[in-house]
Amino acid sequence: MQRYFVDSDAIGPDRVTIRGDDVHHIKNVLRMSPEDRLICCDGQGRDYLTEVESIGTDEVRCRIIDSSPSPGEPGVRVSVASSLPKGDKLEWVLQKGTELGADSFLPFTSARTVVKLDGKRAAKKQIRWQRIVKEAAEQSHRGRIPPVELPGNWRGLLEKFPSYDRVLFAYEKEGQSLADALKGAVGRRFLVVIGPEGGFTEAEAMEAASAGAVPVHLGPRILRAETAPLAILSCIFYSYGEMGGEPL
Amino acid sequence: MQRYFVDSDAIGPDRVTIRGDDVHHIKNVLRMSPEDRLICCDGQGRDYLTEVESIGTDEVRCRIIDSSPSPGEPGVRVSVASSLPKGDKLEWVLQKGTELGADSFLPFTSARTVVKLDGKRAAKKQIRWQRIVKEAAEQSHRGRIPPVELPGNWRGLLEKFPSYDRVLFAYEKEGQSLADALKGAVGRRFLVVIGPEGGFTEAEAMEAASAGAVPVHLGPRILRAETAPLAILSCIFYSYGEMGGEPL
Repeated sequence: MQRYFVDSDAIGPDRVTIRGDDVHHIKNVLRMSPEDRLICCDGQGRDYLTEVESIGTDEVRCRIIDSSPSPGEPGVRVSVASSLPKGDKLEWVLQKGTELGADSFLPFTSARTVVKLDGKRAAKKQIRWQRIVKEAAEQSHRGRIPPVELPGNWRGLLEKFPSYDRVLFAYEKEGQSLADALKGAVGRRFLVVIGPEGGFTEAEAMEAASAGAVPVHLGPRILRAETAPLAILSCIFYSYGEMGGEPL
Repeated sequence: MQRYFVDSDAIGPDRVTIRGDDVHHIKNVLRMSPEDRLICCDGQGRDYLTEVESIGTDEVRCRIIDSSPSPGEPGVRVSVASSLPKGDKLEWVLQKGTELGADSFLPFTSARTVVKLDGKRAAKKQIRWQRIVKEAAEQSHRGRIPPVELPGNWRGLLEKFPSYDRVLFAYEKEGQSLADALKGAVGRRFLVVIGPEGGFTEAEAMEAASAGAVPVHLGPRILRAETAPLAILSCIFYSYGEMGGEPL
């Protein structure tokens, strides 16, 4: 069934009022009519099964039939901090990461980041990134739209480490395997930190470690900056039984 | 150290002769000189540590110092059969799939495949696909270049099922979890079959099952046609300890 994210203030005790672009989509793309059913998600992990009551010029009113927790939200929360990769690579880390179940995205710049974004362009980019994530969240049946933060710097990222149970720092040069890092994990809030194309400097690796991050490697094959976060998300969710079924 | 794939006939008892584009790369891009070291890989899973002896106009001769199995080849072989996705999505399934460790790629068309490729364009595409895979294999330190077959049809794909120990058929509608499908797996040769954007028809699902494929789902989040194969590759290699370290 078609799903739409709506603002929580659009959800009343027994009705949901859909506004904005989705109205056009309901009227002119799907050509829905009263009594058709659709799911409204509050973006906070709750789904509302509704029936269309009335379709106006700029709003669609739906009657709430039932509500339940969104099935698409993993019980393990994994945030992804990617040092800005070149070109549009971050865009598909955001799209694919959202499909896989990422909790939030923290783009940042580090010593070897090539991409430069000034404040103004960064703000414009963030709007675009958030739209990409919203669409991916709807398409993949997520119950939340993972927030994409404004690009920060390395220092600022280090300061965020304490708000996670475990910070996994992707580092080819050394570190333990992802499997071993997960065995030792306590709690279910992860931050995965991925470097730029050129990787992290040794200084950054030491700073991350002393800030509590666990350096992890992904085996003998070298993954690109945009591939590593998707592989790590897949492996973490798989090993916690969040991709359907408990592993061995 | 820089790695190059060379034809096996370029490798003698104690010397490797590099020809083709790599000569330009060694001379003009890396500006190597005699006594510099590089790794030649025969593309069959064996690496040769060599030292440059002479750099000619169209060949570079290297002395073999040592040889060993390529570290980047997984012990589990996973082939990916993707129903041709739209746009250039297959290209990055090939690139990322190669990084992750895919054994080979079998593009195919099924009932809901939108992309149409006639024989001539398919042959041109295959050359491009194979180049993408070669570059990804070098960059990710693979020991083999995964072959990309010419796009086949659904019937032809079904006939290939018997040459694999286990065929995993990605099917949202039903099936067991990937984790359960792997628990029951005997042997280490997998084929992962992924549908187009519109998914497989019920008839195709039944045909795949009666041809011996195990339908698998990846949990509550709906992954795109280009995301699913990369998630499955990550999970299989992770669960077989092929991404560094044995899982729980």
